[in-house]
Amino acid sequence: MMLSFPTSLLNGYRNFMSGRYVDERERYRSLAEEGQKPSTLVIACSDSRSAPETIFDAGPGELFVIRNVANLVPPHEPDGHFHSTSAALEFAVQSLKVTDIVVMGHGRCGGIRAALDPNAEPLSPGNFIGRWMSLVKPAAEQIQSNDVMTPAERQTALERISIRNSLDNLRSFPDIKVREKEGKLHLHGAWFDISTGELWVMDPETRDFIRPEI
Amino acid sequence: MMLSFPTSLLNGYRNFMSGRYVDERERYRSLAEEGQKPSTLVIACSDSRSAPETIFDAGPGELFVIRNVANLVPPHEPDGHFHSTSAALEFAVQSLKVTDIVVMGHGRCGGIRAALDPNAEPLSPGNFIGRWMSLVKPAAEQIQSNDVMTPAERQTALERISIRNSLDNLRSFPDIKVREKEGKLHLHGAWFDISTGELWVMDPETRDFIRPEI
Amino acid sequence: MMLSFPTSLLNGYRNFMSGRYVDERERYRSLAEEGQKPSTLVIACSDSRSAPETIFDAGPGELFVIRNVANLVPPHEPDGHFHSTSAALEFAVQSLKVTDIVVMGHGRCGGIRAALDPNAEPLSPGNFIGRWMSLVKPAAEQIQSNDVMTPAERQTALERISIRNSLDNLRSFPDIKVREKEGKLHLHGAWFDISTGELWVMDPETRDFIRPEI
Amino acid sequence: MMLSFPTSLLNGYRNFMSGRYVDERERYRSLAEEGQKPSTLVIACSDSRSAPETIFDAGPGELFVIRNVANLVPPHEPDGHFHSTSAALEFAVQSLKVTDIVVMGHGRCGGIRAALDPNAEPLSPGNFIGRWMSLVKPAAEQIQSNDVMTPAERQTALERISIRNSLDNLRSFPDIKVREKEGKLHLHGAWFDISTGELWVMDPETRDFIRPEI
Repeated sequence: MMLSFPTSLLNGYRNFMSGRYVDERERYRSLAEEGQKPSTLVIACSDSRSAPETIFDAGPGELFVIRNVANLVPPHEPDGHFHSTSAALEFAVQSLKVTDIVVMGHGRCGGIRAALDPNAEPLSPGNFIGRWMSLVKPAAEQIQSNDVMTPAERQTALERISIRNSLDNLRSFPDIKVREKEGKLHLHGAWFDISTGELWVMDPETRDFIRPEI
Repeated sequence: MMLSFPTSLLNGYRNFMSGRYVDERERYRSLAEEGQKPSTLVIACSDSRSAPETIFDAGPGELFVIRNVANLVPPHEPDGHFHSTSAALEFAVQSLKVTDIVVMGHGRCGGIRAALDPNAEPLSPGNFIGRWMSLVKPAAEQIQSNDVMTPAERQTALERISIRNSLDNLRSFPDIKVREKEGKLHLHGAWFDISTGELWVMDPETRDFIRPEI
Repeated sequence: MMLSFPTSLLNGYRNFMSGRYVDERERYRSLAEEGQKPSTLVIACSDSRSAPETIFDAGPGELFVIRNVANLVPPHEPDGHFHSTSAALEFAVQSLKVTDIVVMGHGRCGGIRAALDPNAEPLSPGNFIGRWMSLVKPAAEQIQSNDVMTPAERQTALERISIRNSLDNLRSFPDIKVREKEGKLHLHGAWFDISTGELWVMDPETRDFIRPEI
Repeated sequence: MMLSFPTSLLNGYRNFMSGRYVDERERYRSLAEEGQKPSTLVIACSDSRSAPETIFDAGPGELFVIRNVANLVPPHEPDGHFHSTSAALEFAVQSLKVTDIVVMGHGRCGGIRAALDPNAEPLSPGNFIGRWMSLVKPAAEQIQSNDVMTPAERQTALERISIRNSLDNLRSFPDIKVREKEGKLHLHGAWFDISTGELWVMDPETRDFIRPEI
């Protein structure tokens, strides 16, 4: 039988099995037996350059991960529709009882770039991406009109603003708000510069992004 | 300044910078300059044990990744709401023009387990997770009533049925359907056994899951 | 004299005599003198691809073997008729006092496939095979109606369910039940994938089939 | 998890996988894809010393095998009961359309020995084995009273008589009788001396057992 499965993935899987898996066989097995107990949820971008497991060198069982375009969190909308991100949030917080949520943005984000482009047309009749990126529209509009910043500066700015936005939206979920107040849950922002490999972390007080000493 | 950022993540990031990043510095830089051009979209579960970059040993730039609970794809619903998964799909297909989409499920999936439990109560007033998992409800009902299979067999069955379901839903997106017919886009199913590390791949003809020779 | 005996069998026998038998001459002789004392009964399918001596690389004297279509055990029916399988069971347990009984099923089982086919006509006026496979009818009916599983998935499911069924029927034999309770007899399930050579073994607690570490 | 599966079988399976299976991987795979097409049905004893695949050095796909105590074939009895041997016969002849059926007995057969012992008590209340061996009762009675033969001679004699008996019973199945007359099916007798490794084959004309030249 001919399988059309991408050869590059099968090659990668072979590397995994003959490499990393050999060392972590027991870990996978016990994680299967006992279930996952990750303490951290990372909300990251779908971008192929911002895999949290790579950047945080995380092994199996460590990070519960949501990945969507531009690592956005929509506000709490209990309207009976399918909410991919909200459902995963709920699962992480209520079932897994994670203690930390990291919203991790990154440089050169295609979603943010599209949100900043005033001439961007809807990408498709359905325009899911346009609708999705409208989550940052109010901020984008303020930034777009700022012609003293370079395009790159505007982009980095909106990438970071959007992270703060998502942190605010996280707190619109009643359960998250309560658990954070009780000290059981901590919210964090991070921004990864894909060009230099630098990680910037949000100071929870000032909400500035700074480079932690490592 | 004291940063509350999780220490385990900072430690992991330090490993990344002193390890993998050293070798891939140029790759990150050129990916930043030229933009990402991943050929594959992987839709995987948020589960901490099923990171596609780990399982497929993928480096930066290789995989565009959506991660939500139970790696589900909702049907095409152009209703003006925020659709995290549909937006990312649209971005991958229309902007990045990926040539392959892999829906990758995995064993011991908590979302699938919840969908199979007839006594499961809504996890919260908002019940996002219940609503989200209702995407597999029709199949779950057929499997629930089957008392000659063990709970684990029912779970594996639904995990695989759900992947086929998501592949069907992918084809409800007009653009995906068209591109697949034109031979420009290929859809695949995969299932990762977190306990043994085995990868099972869906045969596109029979839709059975089999172990590829690697 | 012309013997019509199949040439392939005579050729095979010649190989046996000039090969394996040379090494095992003494073993055969002493097994003849002292009688057989196998500790294990294997109930396997008549299928030409599932010989237990091959799969378990077993030499003379090791396995007492029942082979019938689909490796089924009928329930205890002391009705005075000829019961091939029950008679062999009785001999193995009461005379040979085996300590282990393995019900070994296999993939692509023709008997199971026939049991799953709702349109299957009786194969003959006598319809022995239809009657025999009716031993799995209740389970087959639950599986047949499940249209969210592929045909191959339904088949594998029923192959495994049928093994559990046979293990239950084994326990309807009073002597087996008693000896098992006394710890003198152990019942096991196994499933052999004729396509890949994989052996799956039933976990006695969950009754799931898993791949043992070998 | 602790599996109680017999260690000797797992060890044997390991040998199989690292030995014979390596050479026959493709054969197993193609037999799985294309289905079994054995041309020969062997009806052999459950005895641990008379595995047909061993004695005829047969690989996967070659022999469809029924194994019961004393390799007996009951007469055609279409009575609606479960008939393990008759069902397997029917499957081999009608579905697989085997061209040859071999009834293979062997020396030191415990079932035959029991049938010859006039003092043998029923082995159990259910007495399946006694009932089963009553298939050779008329012959056994003639032999039992013959006190000029040694016990060993009586045993060998009944082992061979029983093979002829089973060949006669095979012909009580209408379909077998018809196919044999049409030249599409050939019936054979064989007797294996477990002590010396000798194979004796029945001359179809005289019905004597002779040693074929090999």
